Amino acid sequence: MRNMTEAQLTEVVLERYSNTPDARLRTVLQSLIRHLHAFVRDVRLTESEWIAGIEFLTRTGQISDNKRQEMILLSDNLGISALVNMVSAGVAEGATESTVIGPFYVPDSPERQWGESVLLRDGEDIPLLIHGRVLDCDGKPVPEAMIEIWQTDSNGMYDIQDRSQPEDNLRGWYRAKPDGAFLLKTIRPTSYPIPTDGPVGVLLRATERHPYRPAHVHAIVSAPGFRKLTTHLFDAEDTYLDSDVVFAVKSSLIREFKRNDSPEAAEKFGVHGPFWELANDFVLTRIG
Amino acid sequence: MRNMTEAQLTEVVLERYSNTPDARLRTVLQSLIRHLHAFVRDVRLTESEWIAGIEFLTRTGQISDNKRQEMILLSDNLGISALVNMVSAGVAEGATESTVIGPFYVPDSPERQWGESVLLRDGEDIPLLIHGRVLDCDGKPVPEAMIEIWQTDSNGMYDIQDRSQPEDNLRGWYRAKPDGAFLLKTIRPTSYPIPTDGPVGVLLRATERHPYRPAHVHAIVSAPGFRKLTTHLFDAEDTYLDSDVVFAVKSSLIREFKRNDSPEAAEKFGVHGPFWELANDFVLTRIG
Repeated sequence: MRNMTEAQLTEVVLERYSNTPDARLRTVLQSLIRHLHAFVRDVRLTESEWIAGIEFLTRTGQISDNKRQEMILLSDNLGISALVNMVSAGVAEGATESTVIGPFYVPDSPERQWGESVLLRDGEDIPLLIHGRVLDCDGKPVPEAMIEIWQTDSNGMYDIQDRSQPEDNLRGWYRAKPDGAFLLKTIRPTSYPIPTDGPVGVLLRATERHPYRPAHVHAIVSAPGFRKLTTHLFDAEDTYLDSDVVFAVKSSLIREFKRNDSPEAAEKFGVHGPFWELANDFVLTRIG
Repeated sequence: MRNMTEAQLTEVVLERYSNTPDARLRTVLQSLIRHLHAFVRDVRLTESEWIAGIEFLTRTGQISDNKRQEMILLSDNLGISALVNMVSAGVAEGATESTVIGPFYVPDSPERQWGESVLLRDGEDIPLLIHGRVLDCDGKPVPEAMIEIWQTDSNGMYDIQDRSQPEDNLRGWYRAKPDGAFLLKTIRPTSYPIPTDGPVGVLLRATERHPYRPAHVHAIVSAPGFRKLTTHLFDAEDTYLDSDVVFAVKSSLIREFKRNDSPEAAEKFGVHGPFWELANDFVLTRIG
């Protein structure tokens, strides 16, 4: 077919993808084509707007490398990541809710021992101790659970953004004990601006949106037989809880970091002086 | 708002973009967000599908450089470029129709003189002479018109894909005479596969689509006071006219390249021996 109306063109394109052997891929691609074509028709996209979009997406890919993932950041900023999380998390009633992974996750971070700190630089920071158990929805301990955490340093930067930090600073994974218990040691996270020196920064300025995320500790909790949980623990005192630039806050993930000045408690957790304390269980969803 | 339904999340994201000062940008972004969110909800996109999409788009940007534009190729392959062309070309009744620009356009190509060939390498190729006038919709000559052409060599590759070709081979722009007349000299184009060594090749294989485009000469025709025309001239004898991988064929752009064996005609056009001939006027749309 050579002389087509707008609607016919969309049907021809869909038809051309109809031989895709993998049924799920076919469904996803045809739906994507349908919705992107509807967008172009709805706004009557011009050629100069189209090329601006092409160049924006190209730069978003080009600025990404093994330490920066601007395409995830873009997805986060359009609320797509939060929506994907919402439609696909599959978290059972009573389990800890999930949220977006964000652009700063690094695979293969180092293992940390019980109560060992992920803070690798010197400083007078008050430690944050996160303790609790990994449980199933019936309240039973989950064996062989692993908890991976990552977060910003007190300057609001992740290690991979900031050459002044040691590699793997504020990043690492812990094995829970057979009864599900864990003790994680870090520092209290701070709110921070997402990177604004790339295409997403251009988008933020053009749309007059602030770049801030409320303070949080990222966590991935996994165990055999359970759905992998990707989540955050947000600081209840943060200013940006209601305007998170990436739309990832859920009420059930907001936590009070409590100051503990008790020398006995400090001794029990193996720290000196006052510390921030967060008692938090992770509740996982059983597969099948 | 922290605990949202899927529909509420979309509304919150849209609201967060509502302060965009540029009204057109606001309209385009909000429509894009609405349609992308609808896509995610419709197919219940999973996190692993989302990350596969992120990685695909990232690679598409990363493989692009000043000689390769894989993001345009992707847009072409999803029929988006053809649709944008359809909704925004604004070609007047009676004017030459436009089509996609494709990923192989290079700005600032060299000027060629009347009848000078854009073929820069040696060889026994039979020349293709394209002659005609640049006219307005009333059939009057358009003064100060420029015609830029680019195409593949006989091996199906553009100069920027193929190190064996001289730089700017089969690429250049001509000034029309005051009466709109032009004489372009090239070779007959061939059908060719789009590049399949990048993400778009992965897409083609996964969807079992062939990678071929029907033979064509690209042209951009511009003149003061007229809409810039981006178009192709397709070879009527080509096999792929009805299955162009990028959906860009329009019947009105299909041309007969006629063999001319007349020594007198050859002399008139300044060539030796037989040649392919295409008599073709470009008809431009006046602005305003």
